[in-house]
Amino acid sequence: MVGAFSASRYCWGMSDDFFAVIPAGGSGTRLWPLSRSGEPKFLLDLLGTGRSLLVETIDRLAPFAPVDRVLVVTGGAHENAVRSQVPSLPMANVLVEPSAKNSAAAVGLAAYVLNQTNPDAVVGFFAADHVVAEEEAFHSVLKTAIDSARSGLMVTIGIAPTEPSSAFGYIKKSDSYDGDAAVHHVGEFVEKPSYLDAQRFLSSGEYLWNAGIFVGSVSSIVAAFEEFSPELAGPLSAIAQHISEGSDISALWDTLPSIAFDYAVAEPAARAGKFLVVPGSFGWRDIGDFASLASAQQGPGSSDVVVVGDSAKVHPHDSTGIVVGSSGRIVTLLGVSDIVVVDTPDALLVTTKEHAQDVKQIVEHMKAQGLEDLL
Amino acid sequence: MVGAFSASRYCWGMSDDFFAVIPAGGSGTRLWPLSRSGEPKFLLDLLGTGRSLLVETIDRLAPFAPVDRVLVVTGGAHENAVRSQVPSLPMANVLVEPSAKNSAAAVGLAAYVLNQTNPDAVVGFFAADHVVAEEEAFHSVLKTAIDSARSGLMVTIGIAPTEPSSAFGYIKKSDSYDGDAAVHHVGEFVEKPSYLDAQRFLSSGEYLWNAGIFVGSVSSIVAAFEEFSPELAGPLSAIAQHISEGSDISALWDTLPSIAFDYAVAEPAARAGKFLVVPGSFGWRDIGDFASLASAQQGPGSSDVVVVGDSAKVHPHDSTGIVVGSSGRIVTLLGVSDIVVVDTPDALLVTTKEHAQDVKQIVEHMKAQGLEDLL
Repeated sequence: MVGAFSASRYCWGMSDDFFAVIPAGGSGTRLWPLSRSGEPKFLLDLLGTGRSLLVETIDRLAPFAPVDRVLVVTGGAHENAVRSQVPSLPMANVLVEPSAKNSAAAVGLAAYVLNQTNPDAVVGFFAADHVVAEEEAFHSVLKTAIDSARSGLMVTIGIAPTEPSSAFGYIKKSDSYDGDAAVHHVGEFVEKPSYLDAQRFLSSGEYLWNAGIFVGSVSSIVAAFEEFSPELAGPLSAIAQHISEGSDISALWDTLPSIAFDYAVAEPAARAGKFLVVPGSFGWRDIGDFASLASAQQGPGSSDVVVVGDSAKVHPHDSTGIVVGSSGRIVTLLGVSDIVVVDTPDALLVTTKEHAQDVKQIVEHMKAQGLEDLL
Repeated sequence: MVGAFSASRYCWGMSDDFFAVIPAGGSGTRLWPLSRSGEPKFLLDLLGTGRSLLVETIDRLAPFAPVDRVLVVTGGAHENAVRSQVPSLPMANVLVEPSAKNSAAAVGLAAYVLNQTNPDAVVGFFAADHVVAEEEAFHSVLKTAIDSARSGLMVTIGIAPTEPSSAFGYIKKSDSYDGDAAVHHVGEFVEKPSYLDAQRFLSSGEYLWNAGIFVGSVSSIVAAFEEFSPELAGPLSAIAQHISEGSDISALWDTLPSIAFDYAVAEPAARAGKFLVVPGSFGWRDIGDFASLASAQQGPGSSDVVVVGDSAKVHPHDSTGIVVGSSGRIVTLLGVSDIVVVDTPDALLVTTKEHAQDVKQIVEHMKAQGLEDLL
């Protein structure tokens, strides 16, 4: 697989000791009925590029980590789909969680597995379902983060905010690190703020979006688990040992607390001065609902109706919004504004961009009604 | 077939000389994609009663005319569907128009065919796709009209208007006929008015909706064609002769002018004092678009979302409007107002009640794009 890359793809200083870990979980219920529990967001070709978000993510990282140095952490329900979408991924590079245990367990699983064989390597963690429009800018920022991680500190990449979003957590920048204007100490990790606080964060210029991207040496991450989250560190170490021996990890996995990595490790590490942040701007998006899918797809000068799917099948008249079509049928819109139409073979959703976030509640409602087979 | 009706069904004074003619044409393009050229409005179970509008119309007339005295005038494209929906209809009772020639030709065809065998009979003309909510009231008005038609004048049934609609033609009442308060001379037939004129008509109390329902002796109708529309009368007489001989009528049919019955016969007959009108109120509706379908289906105290089809498949949340579902899929609405969703196996329409009339333009647009197979 490595041979498939041309020399120019290695211009970012790829070295043999960088691994990319892709936690691939979450169902994306706000994208129902496109996203289903059996086919979550990261497995979907959400942008109509012919590649799923997972494959886009792996391809984007190829100049730093070819597939034999990519680990995907996912649930048993999605293992086959992941292997089928990325057939070049080596067998051992899919780490299957026996159950969903939140982000600390997923990060720790990969870190402890790598610690068995590559304790001196640098590893980066990248969500499976994010979009990056400007790949070169991303590569440049990632190189800075990797270089900084060789200090032994952990390094997050913070996204320069473009709007006062209350949908993301924030990272407050502190002093520059070692005189480098491109790297800062993390002041603090901040949970999703109110809209007013988000406005304040944006105008201050001191806050960045927390995209969950971070880099560190394997040993520094393992050390941070030992120091700040011993209740995870113990079982994780045993789990990695079991995996290397080919033993079943289910019983040990069940003992892990379900806790977010930020809460368990990153926040206390930042307070201890062990987390750096590299600010970046590379057209990053987390497509969380159909409104953000519409704006991700809406190029300048494009039509008033964004189509994800076969645009020849969609006939808009005096309408604005987004049509996501996967049923193959003709979709005709007439005089509807900011409409969201998601047309799948067994379920149809009609809503508006304004209600995009509320789709999650529909899914909960349907679950309560026993309609799981449609979710 | 006559034996199938109980004696009580004949309480309206059914006699052996009343025939019902049902011109079944028109495609109902404002009801696309529910209504198609191959399956127009009159063949659809638009009200979810389990019966098409055509079958409802025939059943409604049964106390006056059993199926052996019902004639359906339709196009060759719909002959098989008509016979299949009304299997008891005798073979000869479907009159097939070689091409669509407007209402004068359809009315005249039936009148001249009946004139061959039943010149003294009384015949009534009833659209195939109208809705009557109050059947007993309709029967009472129809009996008055039939009784009045024995005078030798033609008699239309005018609908007491309930709103200032500009979607219908109007009939202006004139003096009472023969001292009967329930029957008037027709003052004039008025084409579809402006909204302002419709308001004036409504408040005057002198105008009725023209529902295209009329009754007359066969001989009086034939005489009216001879007097007011000789260019139709000649070919129609020859066509009826050909049909009785089993000869092909296509060549003769092609010579008929395409003209509305009101314009060719009813208006000049009214000016000559030969048309009476019986006002009626019987929950009459012409379901011309999805907005009128919604109000026809919206009972008092019913849900905010009208469902035509399997209501268990429709999940509305904070929404109002109408869902017409025939694809079997789940339809979920979230936060949409006055929405119109028409979900068929090969085409989906999303619009609002406000734009219900404009659906016709979509169909024309699709025709121009060569998408006839969907129309």
